[in-house]
Amino acid sequence: MSHPMFEKHRATLEAAVNAIHQRGYWSAYSEMPSPKVYGENAPADGKQAFEAHLGKRFELGQAGEKAWLGGENSPYGVALGVEYPVCEPQALIDAGLAAMDGWQRIGAAGRAGICVEILDRLNRQSFEIAHAVMMTTGQGWMMAFQAGSPHAQDRGLEAVAYAWREMSFVPTEATWEKPQGKNPPLVMKKHFEIVGRGVALVVGCATFPTWNTYPGLFAALATGNAVIVKPHGNAILPAAITVRTIRTVLAENGIDPNLVSLLVPESDAVTREVATHPEVRSIDFTGGNAFGDWLRDNCRQAQLYAEQAGVNSIVIDSTDAYKAMLKNLAFTLSLYSGQMCTTSQALLVPAGGIDTDEGHKSFDEVCADLAAATEGFLGKPEVALAVLGAVQSLATLARIDDAAALSRVVLASKKLDNPDFPKAEVRTPLILACDASDETAYMEERFGPISFVVRTPDTAAAIARAGRIVRERGALTAAIYSTRPEVIAAMTRATMNAKVALSINLTGGVFVNQSAAFSDFHGSGANPAASASYADAAFVASRYCVVQRRYHV
Amino acid sequence: MSHPMFEKHRATLEAAVNAIHQRGYWSAYSEMPSPKVYGENAPADGKQAFEAHLGKRFELGQAGEKAWLGGENSPYGVALGVEYPVCEPQALIDAGLAAMDGWQRIGAAGRAGICVEILDRLNRQSFEIAHAVMMTTGQGWMMAFQAGSPHAQDRGLEAVAYAWREMSFVPTEATWEKPQGKNPPLVMKKHFEIVGRGVALVVGCATFPTWNTYPGLFAALATGNAVIVKPHGNAILPAAITVRTIRTVLAENGIDPNLVSLLVPESDAVTREVATHPEVRSIDFTGGNAFGDWLRDNCRQAQLYAEQAGVNSIVIDSTDAYKAMLKNLAFTLSLYSGQMCTTSQALLVPAGGIDTDEGHKSFDEVCADLAAATEGFLGKPEVALAVLGAVQSLATLARIDDAAALSRVVLASKKLDNPDFPKAEVRTPLILACDASDETAYMEERFGPISFVVRTPDTAAAIARAGRIVRERGALTAAIYSTRPEVIAAMTRATMNAKVALSINLTGGVFVNQSAAFSDFHGSGANPAASASYADAAFVASRYCVVQRRYHV
Repeated sequence: MSHPMFEKHRATLEAAVNAIHQRGYWSAYSEMPSPKVYGENAPADGKQAFEAHLGKRFELGQAGEKAWLGGENSPYGVALGVEYPVCEPQALIDAGLAAMDGWQRIGAAGRAGICVEILDRLNRQSFEIAHAVMMTTGQGWMMAFQAGSPHAQDRGLEAVAYAWREMSFVPTEATWEKPQGKNPPLVMKKHFEIVGRGVALVVGCATFPTWNTYPGLFAALATGNAVIVKPHGNAILPAAITVRTIRTVLAENGIDPNLVSLLVPESDAVTREVATHPEVRSIDFTGGNAFGDWLRDNCRQAQLYAEQAGVNSIVIDSTDAYKAMLKNLAFTLSLYSGQMCTTSQALLVPAGGIDTDEGHKSFDEVCADLAAATEGFLGKPEVALAVLGAVQSLATLARIDDAAALSRVVLASKKLDNPDFPKAEVRTPLILACDASDETAYMEERFGPISFVVRTPDTAAAIARAGRIVRERGALTAAIYSTRPEVIAAMTRATMNAKVALSINLTGGVFVNQSAAFSDFHGSGANPAASASYADAAFVASRYCVVQRRYHV
Repeated sequence: MSHPMFEKHRATLEAAVNAIHQRGYWSAYSEMPSPKVYGENAPADGKQAFEAHLGKRFELGQAGEKAWLGGENSPYGVALGVEYPVCEPQALIDAGLAAMDGWQRIGAAGRAGICVEILDRLNRQSFEIAHAVMMTTGQGWMMAFQAGSPHAQDRGLEAVAYAWREMSFVPTEATWEKPQGKNPPLVMKKHFEIVGRGVALVVGCATFPTWNTYPGLFAALATGNAVIVKPHGNAILPAAITVRTIRTVLAENGIDPNLVSLLVPESDAVTREVATHPEVRSIDFTGGNAFGDWLRDNCRQAQLYAEQAGVNSIVIDSTDAYKAMLKNLAFTLSLYSGQMCTTSQALLVPAGGIDTDEGHKSFDEVCADLAAATEGFLGKPEVALAVLGAVQSLATLARIDDAAALSRVVLASKKLDNPDFPKAEVRTPLILACDASDETAYMEERFGPISFVVRTPDTAAAIARAGRIVRERGALTAAIYSTRPEVIAAMTRATMNAKVALSINLTGGVFVNQSAAFSDFHGSGANPAASASYADAAFVASRYCVVQRRYHV
């Protein structure tokens, strides 16, 4: 059973399925915010579209609208003033459930095709959404464009590709013919229907309101579920634009738009009420441990795909490219002021120092050189402001201030002025040095531009410590720098056992905190930092069931 | 990365993957207990092998052995007297974890190949295992052979096929080459390793100690996990034989046999301790709601695949084959004295009766005719004893006695004598009639040969009630008899929404309580009776993770 939208996007879907199988470089959406790619007027039109939202009510026409709520504070200090409809949760759930029948009936191909159509339409809004992401999260422009638009769209498409691969493996019908010796065979006709499990709740985070939302959103949608998107209260606009576009495309294709809705709750209690609702059968969540653990403990009616806190570590044993290593690390620690779930926090360095192409470097030299490299990298204000962006929350600002007292400061965090956004809170990375035994300092997630150079007895201890951090605290990334194959092998085994992705000797234009859609698994989904990986078979396979019927023929 | 065992069984695996995709009839293991298929001496050898276990210690050579425990009571009244090693749970877990590295290193193909080799070896033990199943569960011989051996092996192979399909989709390595405009591309080499999540606990049931155990056991094993099999205390022998064969085949292939072990706990507390152990990352469970709910509430460190209680229903609206329908139902209600999770319990019949090819039949006539058909079917003692088997537990015996007082008896349960097994407790089905409003009677699982003909206002009410039963109580099967397409369509929609497999107008040699491997999904895995379906992508995809590493080239 095909569908016009499936035929329209068949080539993209097939290429995406091939990409997740080959895992070489592939992307459906250009990451360059270039008029050549997106059209001559795209940058200006996108900015204008973004600005047109400001100070207005964001109409969605959802079920159960009863009030309007806004309150987003831009980390850049820009007044946003957008208000969103507050809806009766039960009305959203009922409307979503009612829309599921039609969504199920168009079949897997129709759902996959419409999902790609939605992503294509979101791609045309890349500049508009990028501005919304930048202004709500504090990301620098380039990151806001790339991570907020094409990279998020790629991750959404990746989830659709996994869903399509699984759903298309299930035949819609079969003839079962069992031989009966000399008697005529038993013959049955069987039909297999893919049915979504119910309402999917997708809870977004404050820092990556599209990149961390699209995988769960599109995985749930493609597999036949109604979806309620609950954005972080400070990053509603990117989700609202997304939901509006989804609703528009659904309606254009004859699907009840109430299948997907935006939940802007008047209180946390409402979110908890929805999360524990018996009709909510899956929850995608990105955020802190407090709410993540609450969801796990209280929402046992739903499958939970949670990305929570973690402590990412790097073992530095030796290198044949000392300067390039330091430069790579400086970029990683600086990017978006370390406000990424993939930013390294603990850099484990042997007490005896490390061998490099510039000779042996003592522990203190490594600390000083990393500090100097970071300062150097951020020396040009235009680079610094573009890379650092702004600090998203007051809590992170306070965390930077408080962390300076935790141990020896190797590089102090500085406040920078952004002439374009005078109210923006811009901070350079804080780098501290401590001993491996000082676990309370570095073995707790300190979200933001806060890192520790941790003195370990030797490399073996550093590797063992890295493994322990993953097992106990969780991690989305890990890295090692070493010129010695046996050390890399030991770290490989340690990260395999602890279940975290490993980057080895990154010195070029790839950074430990970045993962590429269709190639890198974002996390393993199997340590305390995350119960899911974007995206893999496990991320889609439990979101639907197969309901069969059979009869004699 | 291939493996000799993969090459040996490649054709079987590929055929199995094709079968789960096509879902026509396919089977790897012959269901006929025939010397022509299994070898001239197979029946006698198998019986002898079974008898050789009786009255002896079942040596397994596991880690942490500290005592011996037996106590199985045969429903056929045969003395078994087998004793099994009681092991320190932590020793089994530690030994399993230690064995996982080697199991991971041989790769997906090696694991899949060795799993098929194990299944082939179990197939050669089909008669031995069938006797063990028959004598521990009370199943009749033919069912014990088919469900206990080839059908269970097929379900195990089906799980391996799903696991292989998923694992083989993940490439072991990739080259990622990202264009950089006029600059040289970024090039990285990536490796992807499939790593089992930890120790898998597989908790078996008293009635189908292999059929309900093999899917989870082989799904967990193929995906790289250590497995601890905890059989029901009254059906240990089939699991012990299975575990011993697995350990033998593992050792033959250079894998530490402690990867798979048998847990015969000295108390329920030990099972709970293992189920909540942090290293136990998945639990497969078949059994009652009390322990199933406890597992769900307490074992949040593990993925739970649970099959619990349910109430299976049939809507009888009309038929053009009245006699054949009654005969089909009589067999379903009689088979293994209704001690199947798929046996129908509630037969919903309109108060106004039904139209049939033999004229209109009133509600009371349907009741009487079903009773007569059941009595007639069981009229020949040799048929009755073969089909009914023996009642597995004292609790079921008591349930039959107690149920007779619940409502009007349409057919009383009778005790039959089995001359071959004088101590066997053999019972014919109890059929009761009640009103739809009498929910306490028929809307609670009454495991065993207890069924209700439920008077509903009309067919629409019957369909609505069937849907409600599935949603509230869970079900693995549902059926409808109707000559009217609109009624079948309504039941199709109701079962699709409630998420239960539907059998339509079964009058021939297929029964609602039977599901065929590679074609029928055993349950939908999406209502309260079961959180998993044997087998589908969801049944395997969350049992492993992919750990990647990457470096510049």
